[in-house]
Amino acid sequence: MTKYVYFFGDGKAEGAAAMKPLLGGKGANLAEMTNIGLPVPPGFTISTEVCDYFYKHKKSYPGTLKKEIESSLAKLEKMMKRRLGDEKNPLLVSVRSGAAVSMPGMMDTVLNLGLNDTSVQGLVNQSGNERFAYDAYRRFIAMFGNVVMGIEGSKFEEKLKAAKKKRGVENDTELLADDLKALVQEFKAVFKAQTKTDFPQNPKEQLQRSIDAVFGSWNNERAIEYRRMHQIGDLLGTAVNVQSMVFGNLGETSGTGVCFTRNPSTGENYFYGEFLMNAQGEDVVAGIRTPLPILNLQEVMPDAYKKLLKVRSLLERHYKDMQDIEFTIQDRELYLLQTRNGKRTGAASVRIAVDLLRQGLINDRIALTRVDGSSIEQMLFPILSEKSKQHAELVGTGLPAGPGAAVGRIYFTAKDAEHAFEAERAAAKRENRKADAIILVREETSPEDIKGMKVSVGILTARGGMTSHAAVVARQMGKCCIVGCSAVEIAEDNSHCAIGGRKISKGDWLSLDGTHGQVFLGNLEVSDSEVMQVLDGKIKPEKSEVFAYYDTMMKIADKYRTLKVRTNADTPRDTRRARQFGAEGIGLTRSEHMFFDDERIIEVRKMIFAAEPYAKFRRAIAVFERKDQLSRDDQAKLAQLRKESKEPERQFRAAIEKIYKFQRDDFEGIFREMDGLPVTIRLLDPPLHEFLPRKDEDDKIKKIANELGVSTEEIKHRIVSLHESNPMLGHRGCRLSITYPEICVMQVRAIIDAACNVAKKKTTVIPEIMVPLVAEKKEFDYLEKMIRETADGILAKRGVKLHYLVGTMIEIPRAAVMAAGIAETAEFFSFGTNDLTQMTYGFSRDDVEKFVGEYIEHDILAADPFQTLDQKGVGQLIAMGIERGRSTRSDLKIGICGEHGGDPASVVFCHNVGMNYVSCSPLRVPTARIAAGQAKVRELEASFGKRSKASRKGKKSLRAKRS
Amino acid sequence: MTKYVYFFGDGKAEGAAAMKPLLGGKGANLAEMTNIGLPVPPGFTISTEVCDYFYKHKKSYPGTLKKEIESSLAKLEKMMKRRLGDEKNPLLVSVRSGAAVSMPGMMDTVLNLGLNDTSVQGLVNQSGNERFAYDAYRRFIAMFGNVVMGIEGSKFEEKLKAAKKKRGVENDTELLADDLKALVQEFKAVFKAQTKTDFPQNPKEQLQRSIDAVFGSWNNERAIEYRRMHQIGDLLGTAVNVQSMVFGNLGETSGTGVCFTRNPSTGENYFYGEFLMNAQGEDVVAGIRTPLPILNLQEVMPDAYKKLLKVRSLLERHYKDMQDIEFTIQDRELYLLQTRNGKRTGAASVRIAVDLLRQGLINDRIALTRVDGSSIEQMLFPILSEKSKQHAELVGTGLPAGPGAAVGRIYFTAKDAEHAFEAERAAAKRENRKADAIILVREETSPEDIKGMKVSVGILTARGGMTSHAAVVARQMGKCCIVGCSAVEIAEDNSHCAIGGRKISKGDWLSLDGTHGQVFLGNLEVSDSEVMQVLDGKIKPEKSEVFAYYDTMMKIADKYRTLKVRTNADTPRDTRRARQFGAEGIGLTRSEHMFFDDERIIEVRKMIFAAEPYAKFRRAIAVFERKDQLSRDDQAKLAQLRKESKEPERQFRAAIEKIYKFQRDDFEGIFREMDGLPVTIRLLDPPLHEFLPRKDEDDKIKKIANELGVSTEEIKHRIVSLHESNPMLGHRGCRLSITYPEICVMQVRAIIDAACNVAKKKTTVIPEIMVPLVAEKKEFDYLEKMIRETADGILAKRGVKLHYLVGTMIEIPRAAVMAAGIAETAEFFSFGTNDLTQMTYGFSRDDVEKFVGEYIEHDILAADPFQTLDQKGVGQLIAMGIERGRSTRSDLKIGICGEHGGDPASVVFCHNVGMNYVSCSPLRVPTARIAAGQAKVRELEASFGKRSKASRKGKKSLRAKRS
Repeated sequence: MTKYVYFFGDGKAEGAAAMKPLLGGKGANLAEMTNIGLPVPPGFTISTEVCDYFYKHKKSYPGTLKKEIESSLAKLEKMMKRRLGDEKNPLLVSVRSGAAVSMPGMMDTVLNLGLNDTSVQGLVNQSGNERFAYDAYRRFIAMFGNVVMGIEGSKFEEKLKAAKKKRGVENDTELLADDLKALVQEFKAVFKAQTKTDFPQNPKEQLQRSIDAVFGSWNNERAIEYRRMHQIGDLLGTAVNVQSMVFGNLGETSGTGVCFTRNPSTGENYFYGEFLMNAQGEDVVAGIRTPLPILNLQEVMPDAYKKLLKVRSLLERHYKDMQDIEFTIQDRELYLLQTRNGKRTGAASVRIAVDLLRQGLINDRIALTRVDGSSIEQMLFPILSEKSKQHAELVGTGLPAGPGAAVGRIYFTAKDAEHAFEAERAAAKRENRKADAIILVREETSPEDIKGMKVSVGILTARGGMTSHAAVVARQMGKCCIVGCSAVEIAEDNSHCAIGGRKISKGDWLSLDGTHGQVFLGNLEVSDSEVMQVLDGKIKPEKSEVFAYYDTMMKIADKYRTLKVRTNADTPRDTRRARQFGAEGIGLTRSEHMFFDDERIIEVRKMIFAAEPYAKFRRAIAVFERKDQLSRDDQAKLAQLRKESKEPERQFRAAIEKIYKFQRDDFEGIFREMDGLPVTIRLLDPPLHEFLPRKDEDDKIKKIANELGVSTEEIKHRIVSLHESNPMLGHRGCRLSITYPEICVMQVRAIIDAACNVAKKKTTVIPEIMVPLVAEKKEFDYLEKMIRETADGILAKRGVKLHYLVGTMIEIPRAAVMAAGIAETAEFFSFGTNDLTQMTYGFSRDDVEKFVGEYIEHDILAADPFQTLDQKGVGQLIAMGIERGRSTRSDLKIGICGEHGGDPASVVFCHNVGMNYVSCSPLRVPTARIAAGQAKVRELEASFGKRSKASRKGKKSLRAKRS
Repeated sequence: MTKYVYFFGDGKAEGAAAMKPLLGGKGANLAEMTNIGLPVPPGFTISTEVCDYFYKHKKSYPGTLKKEIESSLAKLEKMMKRRLGDEKNPLLVSVRSGAAVSMPGMMDTVLNLGLNDTSVQGLVNQSGNERFAYDAYRRFIAMFGNVVMGIEGSKFEEKLKAAKKKRGVENDTELLADDLKALVQEFKAVFKAQTKTDFPQNPKEQLQRSIDAVFGSWNNERAIEYRRMHQIGDLLGTAVNVQSMVFGNLGETSGTGVCFTRNPSTGENYFYGEFLMNAQGEDVVAGIRTPLPILNLQEVMPDAYKKLLKVRSLLERHYKDMQDIEFTIQDRELYLLQTRNGKRTGAASVRIAVDLLRQGLINDRIALTRVDGSSIEQMLFPILSEKSKQHAELVGTGLPAGPGAAVGRIYFTAKDAEHAFEAERAAAKRENRKADAIILVREETSPEDIKGMKVSVGILTARGGMTSHAAVVARQMGKCCIVGCSAVEIAEDNSHCAIGGRKISKGDWLSLDGTHGQVFLGNLEVSDSEVMQVLDGKIKPEKSEVFAYYDTMMKIADKYRTLKVRTNADTPRDTRRARQFGAEGIGLTRSEHMFFDDERIIEVRKMIFAAEPYAKFRRAIAVFERKDQLSRDDQAKLAQLRKESKEPERQFRAAIEKIYKFQRDDFEGIFREMDGLPVTIRLLDPPLHEFLPRKDEDDKIKKIANELGVSTEEIKHRIVSLHESNPMLGHRGCRLSITYPEICVMQVRAIIDAACNVAKKKTTVIPEIMVPLVAEKKEFDYLEKMIRETADGILAKRGVKLHYLVGTMIEIPRAAVMAAGIAETAEFFSFGTNDLTQMTYGFSRDDVEKFVGEYIEHDILAADPFQTLDQKGVGQLIAMGIERGRSTRSDLKIGICGEHGGDPASVVFCHNVGMNYVSCSPLRVPTARIAAGQAKVRELEASFGKRSKASRKGKKSLRAKRS
């Protein structure tokens, strides 16, 4: 018979930390804490398998569950020497959710369960505190009403406000017992009015319906949204924890708090957290009252504080990681309600891991895997520049909940923020500019705001502490966040706010310094982070503690990783930056990136418009030139063609020659910056019409027409003739080099001439010429010959010795399949996973938004395959391409240059399939280095750590037997 | 030492028929004919390896070649007892090309080589015929001038015409010896004027330069074009045959002819061909003089005719196939110059194979492989309807060189035909109609006209016989063709022609009956072929000889083949037709095909325009419906949404309901026609915007706007919002069914309701519901569930028992890779090779024309992958999909429904990879049956015919050693 309920209490628990999938994070940790001797209120956990059963059986339960709950409850009552609903000595319990992965605030909780009109008297009796008892009862009614029955919280809030007004007080704690007694009646009335039923008096019914509600909350909208956002899949469901209540609101000798064993924002090693006296846990988390820093507890209640410090150290030594704990002090007695690995910012994760390493609690491999792939990036995020801060108006300060800088237009509701984001994005696309960023300003945030937070670069709240919803979620999203900024007052209609007395309207600019909790008026300049400043030589490394942490972590990653990390860079500036971040070469320079400069685009357009007529002549002439013998007539025709082709050819070659110079100079700059490291340059890739003005851009068309000496009609006609139905699958990539060999030759000349020029000045140049969009070996061979002939001709003429490679992108499914043949002539492969994903899925990146939302909603896709590499499908083609390529050329150099090259999960995949390098945007280079190091460490663990593997297997088979 | 030259003569040859790759078709057959004792003028063959060497070594020759040629020439001189250039008894030779695959008229030939100012006297001496000798000499000068020096033939023709005019005669044969003597001087003058050199008098130099010219002609433009058109690759090159001349122009006891051992147009078993007295071979082929039917030879020269009949029968018994022979009679003595398997029409190939089978010369397996895959289709081609012929004006008759009917607009040059074809195709696309066809009308055709012939549906020439260039090429292209229609007179400026005195201008309509050689004015109606009429029951099978041949061949194919053949059909009419052609079910019904009817498209557009607003409401409502508990506020919001959604929903559902009825009725018709056979119906596939009017089609937009009660602006706005950047990779296929489940449900209802309705009337229905464009298992699973719920609901409600399948198309690369998972739920796979080719290659079918021409020109692609399946690349994904699909479902039904399903080579591939069926358009069903039978026969041969395989291997290794 499957066991569904796991008991914990009195120093002994049926569960353990390792049973997270079954008991959820909270349940497993309650068991673990109990086992290691921490003061945990006893209770029991209903397993996640029940949740799974619940949803698979039309929200019903396994037949044996009821009995298990009853016997556990009996055990609990016996242990606590109290009975649920007892009129003299009642047991009160909490009912909480808890999945294997923490989803803070997403699911439901019911507290003070067991109270009714009778047992409330028992509680008075038990606590000797009538006020407390009725306060607990009214809270229970409201919570049950809200969570179980779906009554809006405001219905109860209104009554509470009225009661306070009537009594003439401001805080809930100032209400008297009689006020609360009356409130209980009013709350019951609200309950009846809203639900047409009486508030249930039977505690067993209360318990059952609360359990139903918690299981039900697993699939509420915000929980689903949260799981989608965090790509949490494959969980069975939530567990439900039923635990005897302890009370932080039993008067001024009681209290409750939430702490981190270290600062979760910076990672600094001091006890960090908040507490509220005479309060229940949710008062701290919800941010309704601003709590006190935990240090103050030393004064308020020195014994409890001392115990808490012991708990802190015990937990860190046990879990070997920073912990996030909830505690309650009931009548000076400390109880631990929860512990879990604390969420932290990227910067904090680095610092904590390095500090734990220095303390000897973990080794460097573990330290490395403690850092979330992309979190290292947060240390590089820009901050508000000191200069602009000096001239700006500081209008408020708050708690620095998420570091970095945010500059954007403010909105006061999540919906407004979402709409503004969409509208701005569309406008920016239309006007061809960068979209203005959004900042969400709220009284406080709640799970309903998640979508609005997602589209914002920064979050500012008027209330709440460092552990409030806004703070926790923002840290996790890696967003700049300031909470508890009491200077903020938001107008009721959400049209404007006042900050420090200054009125700021919806859509106005605001700047946040999330590292220092400062709020400034206007659109401030941002500048580099401390790590960036060290990298730039503006601060000496030894002067920067932050840099030391960054550097230690990067060195650990580099110590282990075998995968090289290159960068995608199109300019000398990006190249320099990427090298500072540790790039070991360039994996992708888009040779056409330089075409878009104002000065250049006109030449590019001239080239394109001259290309077509010239190419027609060229082809006609070639027909005659292929003949062995030319008759008189043929000779005349040929002469005529040659004559007519002169002007188009002159125009075409003149434009090409100008572009050649631009390109050569750019490549020189890049080669210089990458001295000694390889530089991969991709030949022209996008379809030519991408460089043209739109048919309705009359000014631009006129300009071109004048320069080329043709009519605007002619230009419009050519724009139309270059139009394609499916440009992604059209005349682009190497197909352009085949139809316009002059352009290919020009680009190769620019690359090799630039390399020669730079090589003469003692720079070591390693050019890698990359042919895009190859589908067939002969395509590559044709161009490879052209490229080598051009390059070798220049090298011979200039007398320069230079080793260069010619390789190809593998971005078309057929190329992956035919890789063995292509590798016969290609010296390297670079997987272009953007295009490969498009064609393997048949998804156009530009159109996918029309259906991908519903795909994720219906769980058809777990994630956007353009963000995270589809390892199962696209990944197979990559693995096939690598295996087949190496089958004919064992030393084939293989990398990736799609945007996946900077996605940590994808980097791990690239390591596992045996690539030589990944290439990503400069800012993601450190992320890729970390991920590559982690991949290697995991590989080492997998091959050497057989003991742990075996134990995991044991667990798995146990689970298999049980279910 | 490699042997390069192979001698033949006097009943003994160094070569044999099996040495085709090395000696070319002509050389191998001259050797073979010599060996079997036929009277072949002796000579020698320079192998194709020399051609290969020639092009690989800058047009130079192997060092040992010269010696070999000299010794062979000496042997020939000895055998013939004549010497090249001898002043008394000169040897004359021909120099001809001959590749392993016949390329008629594509490469160069030089005749009468060895004549000069001295040896011409020897020829006078030898033949006792001065006229003949000078005629040969003037011919040789013109041919050498044209072929070797590139002088235009017209330069010589003008002089010849002038001479005839001067003499006042019409035929060349009427010129006297003195005229020809003078002509020789004039031709030499032309030669000198055009080339600035004297006509070479040294016979060895003549020979060497002629050999150069023939090897050079291997890569002339028309030969390259021919090889491309016929997908001839991988040949080493051409061989060169040097053979002693025999003369058909030695007076009225000499002649020359070209014959087929059977009628190549109909396949009838009688001796068929043409001859000209006192003429050389090229006079017959070039069509300058219209020759006499071979039967007439019986009267003119009964002995020679009797010998020829013996040769005919000897050849057929030796080669076991219809032969195409060239002969010359010199002074009543018969010589065979060439034999090869004769080219024939599709209909003839069927008849000849069946007749040879009946004669016992071949077995049924060989008979089957004798038919070119698509040739059977020619028996089904429409003909001009008798009724329309009765009312039409017959303006001329000619030789029926290519059967069938052609109705089109006439053009008089290949260039004009090509241009008209392009312009008409573009106009038709613009105006959304079928393009008018083109007919090419020429005096005679030459290899330069090939492109023009390609774009035409029919060819009409004024001159030439059944073996003329036009006739041979047209038969091979499967085009309707009439040659030698002397009623045709074409104006010099190619602006019009007169046929039977009626003036017909460029662009006017003409109708050809290629079966009977009749030319009609105007645009005649076409009707069904004889086979079609039998299939339609209009003629009794036993009354039709033609049908008996067709039927015998199809029965042989069906006896062997294991691959089923289905059809792609969208209407009951197509379905019926396909069944007549032997289709064993429907592999693809495009459910949206029926949307384009005038009456329906408006409903479809209404559905599309209502879909978007409705879907928005549906999604908003679903958010609330997912909640377990609704607060009062939520309830109010939900009620409001439901209210607002009513009108869009009503419009959407009303449109859907109308379409449901159309679809159900159509499906009923199709099911009835396919009684007892499976019918695969594909759910909506194309992106919705394909059904919309263009943004500038104001009338249509206004109509929609009125019907929907919204503004035209709103409609235009929605058209824009439905626009996609890459529709091929966009919101289409199953993605539509997921975002608009109502449409999917409607289509399933229509299918199942139709099936129930028809099943109740005793029709056996086997519906197979096909989900298009699946990339991911979950996508299919999601829809499969929806489809089954809908279908099972209807079946239960209606109490009908019906077995239906739910399967998917495999047309996205990822689906092929992930096929194992998809096959867990999919009951069948159908490979959509059009899309699969697009995505595997990254080629948009609509845009590929921009570069595919150059790809084929540069030999990067051998063929258009949309025409013939790319077995190496796309084929691997198909094989992978099949293997993986069957790994989880061993009885998975697998077919193909792309347009490749009717391409013979692709059908063979489908058989080889283990598909269950192919599906193709109705007219290609017989082709696919033949190809499937051939595939099986070849498979049987491969597994049992080890002897022949071993011998082939032997040859290969011999070749490897030698080269």
